[in-house]
Amino acid sequence: MAYTDADRQGREYILRLMQDAGLEVRIDTAGNILGRREGTEAGAPAILFGSHIDSVPNGGNYDGDVGVLSSIEAVRTLVSRNERTRHPLEVVVFQNEEGGLIGSKLMATGLTDEELNRVANSGKTLREGIGFLGGDVARREEARRSSSQTLCYLELHIEQGGNLETLGKTIGVVEGIVSLREVEVTVDGFANHAGTTPMDHRQDAMLAAAQFAVEMNRMVRAMPGRQVATVGRIAAQPGAPNVVPGRVVFSIDYRDLAVATLDRLDEQFHDIARKVELETGARFSFDQHPASAPALMNDGLRAMIAESADGLGLSTHSLPSGAGHDAQQMAKITPTAMIFIPSRGGISHSPNEYTSPEDVVHGANALLQTVLLVDQNGMTR
Amino acid sequence: MAYTDADRQGREYILRLMQDAGLEVRIDTAGNILGRREGTEAGAPAILFGSHIDSVPNGGNYDGDVGVLSSIEAVRTLVSRNERTRHPLEVVVFQNEEGGLIGSKLMATGLTDEELNRVANSGKTLREGIGFLGGDVARREEARRSSSQTLCYLELHIEQGGNLETLGKTIGVVEGIVSLREVEVTVDGFANHAGTTPMDHRQDAMLAAAQFAVEMNRMVRAMPGRQVATVGRIAAQPGAPNVVPGRVVFSIDYRDLAVATLDRLDEQFHDIARKVELETGARFSFDQHPASAPALMNDGLRAMIAESADGLGLSTHSLPSGAGHDAQQMAKITPTAMIFIPSRGGISHSPNEYTSPEDVVHGANALLQTVLLVDQNGMTR
Repeated sequence: MAYTDADRQGREYILRLMQDAGLEVRIDTAGNILGRREGTEAGAPAILFGSHIDSVPNGGNYDGDVGVLSSIEAVRTLVSRNERTRHPLEVVVFQNEEGGLIGSKLMATGLTDEELNRVANSGKTLREGIGFLGGDVARREEARRSSSQTLCYLELHIEQGGNLETLGKTIGVVEGIVSLREVEVTVDGFANHAGTTPMDHRQDAMLAAAQFAVEMNRMVRAMPGRQVATVGRIAAQPGAPNVVPGRVVFSIDYRDLAVATLDRLDEQFHDIARKVELETGARFSFDQHPASAPALMNDGLRAMIAESADGLGLSTHSLPSGAGHDAQQMAKITPTAMIFIPSRGGISHSPNEYTSPEDVVHGANALLQTVLLVDQNGMTR
Repeated sequence: MAYTDADRQGREYILRLMQDAGLEVRIDTAGNILGRREGTEAGAPAILFGSHIDSVPNGGNYDGDVGVLSSIEAVRTLVSRNERTRHPLEVVVFQNEEGGLIGSKLMATGLTDEELNRVANSGKTLREGIGFLGGDVARREEARRSSSQTLCYLELHIEQGGNLETLGKTIGVVEGIVSLREVEVTVDGFANHAGTTPMDHRQDAMLAAAQFAVEMNRMVRAMPGRQVATVGRIAAQPGAPNVVPGRVVFSIDYRDLAVATLDRLDEQFHDIARKVELETGARFSFDQHPASAPALMNDGLRAMIAESADGLGLSTHSLPSGAGHDAQQMAKITPTAMIFIPSRGGISHSPNEYTSPEDVVHGANALLQTVLLVDQNGMTR
């Protein structure tokens, strides 16, 4: 977990690996680790690639780590072949990805003083955490990266979903990182005695919420596309077995690459609510939380990932990322793309997270070949 | 609330009213208040009638009180008419009805030492509460009432439901007090990332629980009869908006007068669960709590209540009681019946609880006339 002793120990281990690979390593003022290998062309912008090594409580061993270790391995391969690229190569290890893409936000857009006072899972504030990792909050703006310094950003990551496994594909070419919306739905009915209130005299908020959840699921599945919507949290009030609930509050998390699809879901949620209101007499209200924008991946880079995979004889599949990644921050300042490899059972954020050694090798090879293709072609092809 | 200073003050007030009505008042060893007026026939068993005056937190002014005050008024009426019954009359004020029918249990079947150690809402144990009200726990068996001492038990109460109001009827003739069953249902699916797990790869415990709740409601309403079933409590695990719930636990409270109907509901719950399991891949398990048996009211007494109401020109309606009452304990040792009067909007256990003064008068008159009819006819008619 970011900003813990384990995080610092992991970073020290990775930092040594990077140095051993021949990279010139530094910690930027945001607390990110950067390892650089100069290119042959003076003043050329760097090809940046990497991921993160922090994890979630009770998390797995692949989320983030696969991208960082494969990036180091790609550099080691070039060094062992005595092969130098035209562009400088930079491997980045973003700090505190799991706590809100903190390192990449500091690199791409910065964070306010207020945002830095937020307490992370470790119990430290972001401000304290950055210092703990060897950054310097007062000078954090120096970690901001200009477009002119950077040719592109590439990230290899496990899918954290089951699409590649189900389809039997090895390399996922990420189309973009979905936009996430979240709404808190309040259903108001009328609390009443569960024994004395006949079934047809009730305004049962629980029944209305359940009907909504069932119809929402049906609607989301019936629409063409890959949108997802989830009721993850629910509470009934007063919450006693012998009282018909007068109020139920639940969350909807819904995601898609297309803003138009999310707008359509918003409409449908309200339509379903109106229908259930008529049937149950309960009333729905919606409290919308701030949304994250979708981050589309660069078309040129996506083509080069596919070409690299083809060259390696690896099957590919285009898909969106339903989870957030540092790449969505980097896409704000530089052409960005992501490579996915299969997650067994789609399981993630769990000790059961697993990707086969073969697939990790395939992913690392695809990453290296893409880096070389970008190095040859630049971003103008 | 039972065993509070307010409870004691209310009881002192009621005790004075009973004495002023000419009753010989005592507190039994269980803490119940009993007021007796002797009859003309030596050794005849007593006609017992009454209710309770304790309430729930944030409760109303009618639940229980209407029955106690009407019982005292019935005696005052006889005294003012200088009319003496053949059988002794006994007005009873049961202690702590809302906390689990404590006073009537002690009178009907007794409570174990372990049961007396339970902490009531006041913070006192039942044991302490009985002492607080002037009872004597060590001698509590003396409060047990034999069948030979008692001709019958009658209780006037507000309906706590909306049937009489909806039907425009004044006097409810209670058929019986329903059996209550409660089951805790656990739905096990598979917790997964709400962003990366496609809709058709989920084992969503929340969706399965919602489907169950919707289909259960439909089934219960489609069955002939007056059975009720309620999902009053629900919790999703892990309960984060961005995680497909891996487990959902919810309660079902279901009630009916007929054990066969409850058995049928049990079967149907399992049938619905199996159907939802097939559709969602989630698994259901049921943890059944101890059930209360139904308490059927005495047919002869019910006929006399209806006859009394007819004689007063009051409309009647037969219905079950969905809520528990002291009468269900008394039914174990003596012929028992209940008279209901309308609750506005069916509202109960709320400051909005209301019954019109006219309906209270109708109820008290029906109670008095029933007492007189029983006194004339005995229980053999």
